[in-house]
Amino acid sequence: MAEHPTSQARRPANRGPKAAAGNRAALVAAAREIYAVHGLDAPLSMIARRAGVGQGVLYRHFPDRDAVAAAILEENVREIEQAAAVEGATLAGVLGVLTWHQVRSAAFIGLLHAEGARGRAPGAARELADRVGRTLRGCLPAGGRAGAPDARDDLMLAVAMVSGAVSGGATHEERERRALAAWRLLGITVGPVRPFEG
Amino acid sequence: MAEHPTSQARRPANRGPKAAAGNRAALVAAAREIYAVHGLDAPLSMIARRAGVGQGVLYRHFPDRDAVAAAILEENVREIEQAAAVEGATLAGVLGVLTWHQVRSAAFIGLLHAEGARGRAPGAARELADRVGRTLRGCLPAGGRAGAPDARDDLMLAVAMVSGAVSGGATHEERERRALAAWRLLGITVGPVRPFEG
Repeated sequence: MAEHPTSQARRPANRGPKAAAGNRAALVAAAREIYAVHGLDAPLSMIARRAGVGQGVLYRHFPDRDAVAAAILEENVREIEQAAAVEGATLAGVLGVLTWHQVRSAAFIGLLHAEGARGRAPGAARELADRVGRTLRGCLPAGGRAGAPDARDDLMLAVAMVSGAVSGGATHEERERRALAAWRLLGITVGPVRPFEG
Repeated sequence: MAEHPTSQARRPANRGPKAAAGNRAALVAAAREIYAVHGLDAPLSMIARRAGVGQGVLYRHFPDRDAVAAAILEENVREIEQAAAVEGATLAGVLGVLTWHQVRSAAFIGLLHAEGARGRAPGAARELADRVGRTLRGCLPAGGRAGAPDARDDLMLAVAMVSGAVSGGATHEERERRALAAWRLLGITVGPVRPFEG
């Protein structure tokens, strides 16, 4: 995520209405890179510049910071879904991608808490959290494992617990170390902690 | 904590310098009751009134809201220490008292995260979190259990994980249900979830 400007960043500033979807994708990718390096207070103008579009184009897609954050969360969830859709995907592998986002994004952790707080969380967050829950449950072997009859119900609780462990870490390294120790305490196998690269 | 005014609330408003410690204790007790019922936005004047002291007395002990919150957290930690100091205390019993505070206080959960985030948390929070850690470790059987060689290091991580589970609940009941399910997933026995009553 902390890569240098991609080829997208060097596209001409105005690509016309047909390029709207491309502009949007470039803006989301740029926002993730900028936020990863400069934090959530980075100016939106920096994101527009990195995406190679004018600020007017940015505001057309994202009226405010919250809209940018929502688009990134949506993209995080989509990556988890894509990781699960790959031929031969395992729960461990998908949990590795999920953990990668937990370690790097406080907003993503807030989203996962929305799953437990159905009455309270805004509809959009709840919907995204539900998608994560459905995706993970879809990775479970049919019928559940012996000795883990409640695995379906408990999976999102386990994810919330790992979020709690991660929240106590001050650096990415410490957060990842705590996440892996938490999964180990839960007796759940997790694959490499890494982004999904389709 | 949601009791009606205690005898302390009906003491005369000004008890002079010698009663300072008593005033302070009455203010902390009153703040816990008021916050439990009215939330953290309750006016400080309500706390003074419940404690039966003037607002000047309150401000002498607690210059601002943060000072009140810090005193309550200190009192929560003291209760956990007292629960552990009782003859025949068990880890399960002490965890029941700790869980009671986790379920009822977002501030207490923030405090527990301070344990993992040593570099970041303010000194006072870190010191309180360390006291919780020391207290729980003191309840472990000497030499650790068979099959749980890392129990000492893992105990505060487990507490952070339960905090993560609790955070997802919208009501006290839901938070307690999630806390107990989390301890169960961790395979750690927890006694009744209740305040320490010395």
